Order: sequence, then C-alpha cells, then structure tokens
Amino acid sequence: MKLGIVVGSVVATRKSGNLEARKILVVRYLNDEMAETGTAHACIDTVDAGEGDVVLVCASSSARLTAVTKGVATDSAIVGIVDTVSSGTKDLYRKHIARPR
Amino acid sequence: MKLGIVVGSVVATRKSGNLEARKILVVRYLNDEMAETGTAHACIDTVDAGEGDVVLVCASSSARLTAVTKGVATDSAIVGIVDTVSSGTKDLYRKHIARPR
Amino acid sequence: MKLGIVVGSVVATRKSGNLEARKILVVRYLNDEMAETGTAHACIDTVDAGEGDVVLVCASSSARLTAVTKGVATDSAIVGIVDTVSSGTKDLYRKHIARPR
Amino acid sequence: MKLGIVVGSVVATRKSGNLEARKILVVRYLNDEMAETGTAHACIDTVDAGEGDVVLVCASSSARLTAVTKGVATDSAIVGIVDTVSSGTKDLYRKHIARPR
Amino acid sequence: MKLGIVVGSVVATRKSGNLEARKILVVRYLNDEMAETGTAHACIDTVDAGEGDVVLVCASSSARLTAVTKGVATDSAIVGIVDTVSSGTKDLYRKHIARPR
Repeated sequence: MKLGIVVGSVVATRKSGNLEARKILVVRYLNDEMAETGTAHACIDTVDAGEGDVVLVCASSSARLTAVTKGVATDSAIVGIVDTVSSGTKDLYRKHIARPR
Repeated sequence: MKLGIVVGSVVATRKSGNLEARKILVVRYLNDEMAETGTAHACIDTVDAGEGDVVLVCASSSARLTAVTKGVATDSAIVGIVDTVSSGTKDLYRKHIARPR
Repeated sequence: MKLGIVVGSVVATRKSGNLEARKILVVRYLNDEMAETGTAHACIDTVDAGEGDVVLVCASSSARLTAVTKGVATDSAIVGIVDTVSSGTKDLYRKHIARPR
Repeated sequence: MKLGIVVGSVVATRKSGNLEARKILVVRYLNDEMAETGTAHACIDTVDAGEGDVVLVCASSSARLTAVTKGVATDSAIVGIVDTVSSGTKDLYRKHIARPR
Repeated sequence: MKLGIVVGSVVATRKSGNLEARKILVVRYLNDEMAETGTAHACIDTVDAGEGDVVLVCASSSARLTAVTKGVATDSAIVGIVDTVSSGTKDLYRKHIARPR
C-alpha cells in the first residue's frame, strides 16, 4: 500500500460502477520520509478518514476487498488511518491530536 | 481513481475484445492542484462525458465493473463526471457552466 | 488503453504460458499530442496490426479478454487499429493511406 | 517482484479489508545494483522480516496469494527474505550477519 | 510484456506464497532500441533462461498463467527467450551464439 495524506474531496453526481454514495477523497502520496510527493489519487474512503489524516491506500483489484468497495469500479481505497510510522527507535510520524469528525 | 480532463476522442474501426460500439475518449490526467500533466489515456466512457469535462478514471480490472465495460478488453474507464474538488473550505475545481451535449 | 505506434516485432522460439503462435509486436507509446515517447512494450497482436499502425494497447488482466489472448500469459494486447484521434474540430491523427498487408 | 530493504513499520488502529492483525512494514526499493531508490511502499509481512532485511515484494493481485494475505485488501506483500543477489560470479548482496529477532 | 536482459539471480531461503523451488532471476529492462534502462525486477523463470539472455517479462496477474507460476505469489515471470527483435528490414537484436546451459 502507499502512504498518503488526505488533502481534499470530490463530488461527482453522475457516476457508474456502483460508485454512488461512496465518499471520494483526494490523497497526496508521501515518500518513505513522510514528505509529500507530487502525485495524488482519488480514493474511496472505507475507514471514515478526513483531511489531514495520514492513510494507507490500497490499489488494484485488492481495493475492492472491503465491505464498502465490494463490486465497485474503483482502483484505490483508503484502508487504514495511520497512527505511527517508525524507523528503528525513531518515529517518522505520530498522530498527535484527536481530529474532530 | 485518477482525475483527468477529456481532451479528445478516438475512432477505431478494427477492434477486438468487445470494444465494438464503445465510445473511447482521450483523457489528460490532472495533478492534485487540478493542473494538467503530460500523461494521457484512451478510456471507455461509461457516463456520457464530453470534451472539457473533468472526470474520474478507473484503471486495472476494476475498469470492467460497469454495465458498459463488463467483459470488455479495457484497462481504463471514465466512471464519473466531477462537479467539485475541494480542499478544506476552498474549491479547487467547480463545474460552472452546463455544457451542451 | 494507451495509444502507441507499432515499430517492430519479436521472435521468441522458447515460450511458455500459451504464448506459442502469438504475434508479438513492439509498440512505442504516444502522448496525447500523438508524439512518440521513450517507452515501449511487447504486445500480443489481436487485430492484424502492422508496423506504422497507430494502435490501442490494453494492459493488465483485461489484455486477456480477447479471443486471441484468452488464457495467455500476457499483460498487454493490441486491441484496436486507430483511424482518427480528434480534439474538438481538429484531427490530431488521421490514417491516410491504406497500408498493404 | 521488487527487491527492497525494510526501513520501518506502520501502526494503524483503524483498518478495513481484513488488515487487522497484519504486520505492516515500510520497504524502500533497491535498483539492480542494490542501491536504495527514492520510492517505498507499505507492505504486509508474510515471512517474519525485520528492519534491515533485504526482501522480495510482490505487488498486485498476486500479493494476496499467501496464507497471511488471503482475502486481505493489500496490493503488496513481503514474500521472501533475500540471502544473496549475484551477477555472474560476483555477489551484489550477501546477508552476512544473523539479525536478532 | 517488457523486453529485458537477465543480469543476475536471487537466493532466498525463507519464502511464502508457493515461491519455494522457483528460480528467481534479476532482469534489467530494455527500451525499444534495446538499450538497458535503470529499472529491474526479480522474476520467476519459466523458460530456463540464463544470464545474458534477452527475455520477455509478463507482469501482473497474467504472470501466474504458466505451469511454473500457477498459484504462486509473483507479479512477474519470464515467459520467453527472445531470438530477434526487428524493425522493418533491420534487426535491432539477434541472438547469435548458443549460450551453454
């Protein structure tokens, strides 16, 4: 999976492939030092994520292996909200503050 | 999914893989600030999109999960027409004007 | 799908995955202004394409959804020969001359 | 598969797609001279790998073909711990020292 | 498929996903002028290839469609040994000399 940060959301009234009623968020990918890269994807949210959350994004056919995305025409799903990313004894990322939903 | 803008169309008389009678549009991808990138794809349209529309493009096997693309040899389908892309309280993109079809 | 131009062919006597007797062509990809890019793929031909043809290439598991590629270990198939690519009222590409086969 | 080196780990309490209880490691990819590249992925560990290990990473739907990842919404799994990578009579990489687990 | 040249091999004792007893080779990809690129993959060999061979590499789920890779957690398989790559009347590559195995 890729690590990314949620930076926005998409509204699309006209959709096909069972995308109706799915929440679509824009995720900007992070590199392994947790810096933002220039690429982003529109992903189906399956874990109630929000802007600013660091998330795990699953691509390809595996993106359909959640209750929310089963049978849906999507190639990318947010499948986890990240608490910490650590390397050795160092935390590269830690989710400090409870974000109101 | 990727965000892209429809920039053209493809006519191909000789086709295989059940591509007959499918509308094929050329989509140029957008980055997360909604600026056009240098890459593009030929995608099956499943939502009656047209040139100038900002769309959601689904790749991989999931591109076949629509009524139009079922069993079709395509790796990319337009699965939504985007109304707005927003980040926080700011709209990065808003579809202003009804485009005649 | 990607747009590409057929630039060569591959002969491989020792093959597996039901690739025997399949015609393998080298396709150089085009960008959305129909200029050649630096990347290319070896693709199974399913539409009797030839050198110089502009073609549609389908990747991933969908590449197996033709009569020629069913059950074949290939990740890319030529699934259409392009007649025109147009943007608005402008033709970016038009296949002018009947190529002898 | 890609060759990579394990550089960290991810903790994510809120997950979907059967990712619960899976160990997620951050893998930085290596090029064919075994030098680290700038890209990385979060991968499900299926072979009890640890930081510093050089590993084989399987992507796409094949990432689900292990006992640990069956039915899991992941697009990348660590499927091997590398002992040696050699080219001709030269070893590009050799795992010298037993790493305590 | 991609064209590549076999440049090395991988030994990994600890494996999962039915990778046991599979020969894993490192393949450096070639561009369409048969020059080596900077990217490489670890691929399951299904055609008894060796170092120096120019090969066809199949990626994604199709990599599992050989007798050797069926049910195996791999996203890339060597599915052919290339004899010639030609463009028009010119040979870009020709396998001259029988390599001892």
